[in-house]
Amino acid sequence: MIDFKALFKISYGLYIVCSGNKTKGNGFVSNTVFQITSEPAQFAASCNKDNYTCDLISRSGNFSVSILHQEASSELIGKFGFRSGKDFNKLENTTVKYGQTGAPIVTDGSIAYLEFKVVEKIDLGSHILFIGELVNSQVLDEDKVPLTYAHYRDVKKGIAPKNAPTFIDKSKLEAKAETKSPDNYKCLACGYIYESDNEDIPFEDLPDDWTCPICGAEKEDFIKM
Amino acid sequence: MIDFKALFKISYGLYIVCSGNKTKGNGFVSNTVFQITSEPAQFAASCNKDNYTCDLISRSGNFSVSILHQEASSELIGKFGFRSGKDFNKLENTTVKYGQTGAPIVTDGSIAYLEFKVVEKIDLGSHILFIGELVNSQVLDEDKVPLTYAHYRDVKKGIAPKNAPTFIDKSKLEAKAETKSPDNYKCLACGYIYESDNEDIPFEDLPDDWTCPICGAEKEDFIKM
Repeated sequence: MIDFKALFKISYGLYIVCSGNKTKGNGFVSNTVFQITSEPAQFAASCNKDNYTCDLISRSGNFSVSILHQEASSELIGKFGFRSGKDFNKLENTTVKYGQTGAPIVTDGSIAYLEFKVVEKIDLGSHILFIGELVNSQVLDEDKVPLTYAHYRDVKKGIAPKNAPTFIDKSKLEAKAETKSPDNYKCLACGYIYESDNEDIPFEDLPDDWTCPICGAEKEDFIKM
Repeated sequence: MIDFKALFKISYGLYIVCSGNKTKGNGFVSNTVFQITSEPAQFAASCNKDNYTCDLISRSGNFSVSILHQEASSELIGKFGFRSGKDFNKLENTTVKYGQTGAPIVTDGSIAYLEFKVVEKIDLGSHILFIGELVNSQVLDEDKVPLTYAHYRDVKKGIAPKNAPTFIDKSKLEAKAETKSPDNYKCLACGYIYESDNEDIPFEDLPDDWTCPICGAEKEDFIKM
């Protein structure tokens, strides 16, 4: 018997994984980055094949991992976690540096970063697991605390994007929230609140393709408050 | 340039990974277990080839993951993290159940467990990355908090075993501790303190093959307090 609640007890951090180069770069929010050997230092990162960044990693053979801290803004997480880079340049208006492999590295909201060259690629069906050898890393802020997925979920009230390996069925979250006022809706990606009373259209009547004005998350990524 | 301090910012949980069956079973403490796809639910676990459990997973094609909580005892972590199962039955005097694959599952100190059948095996040099498909899982305790590696390191003052992908050079820890009394030594595995003044032999003069009387950790796993 599988109890999916058991899966939520696994601990993860929260990262922005980027790839590409100065001309064409992109990134996405990931919680599945981890070290797998110490000599040499190799890491694994799981990436949904639907993510634009997945193509970029395959083509460029590099990726960077920015380790988010607890004060990383919801807008940053919303932008990289809930919008596709296929039709939108996520790196614009984000503080980015370029590593020795040429990969973009997000330094906004980040406590440290790691840069990898891909040494292996494992096809897992919906996702590709990239194995990277560490070529470059730096601590950006000694004092801040790394953002964990538990903190993101419990304190920042965030959810996993649909492409994440740890995507959570949202109906479980909605059931909890329904005791509060019926009119306002909160964006689970960035925290923006749509106050139906102060808008021309109640949230329920917004078109299905309406998106969050702050981070671009979809209407279905909002919950009733 | 590689700054290894950046690697310490990655967040991990702490787990006991077991494999085998009722006749021959073993387990080890791991921090590198993570979900890699959601449909089907597949996880990856990195295992040093020197670990006895690594052979057992290869042979039996199953493994279980017990998710430790914050109140898990240092003795439990010491026993599974710092002793080899080659010459010692770790499952004796531990609360264990057997899953549907036959794998032993440690329930002591655990908030939940997951059970897998191996679907892929990736050779990474020093380690093997096992990909498992989830076949069984259960929450054992709704109220406790999952133990994170950060908590283990910062609050419980634990270190990574030498076989772990995230093994930390201990000299960094010793430098910090040297301002305190010179005579007592603490076992980093279980917290046991060797008080040289109250023993016949000062810690420094103990033989190299001396081990912790509580958890069996080696002499070099102690730090000066």
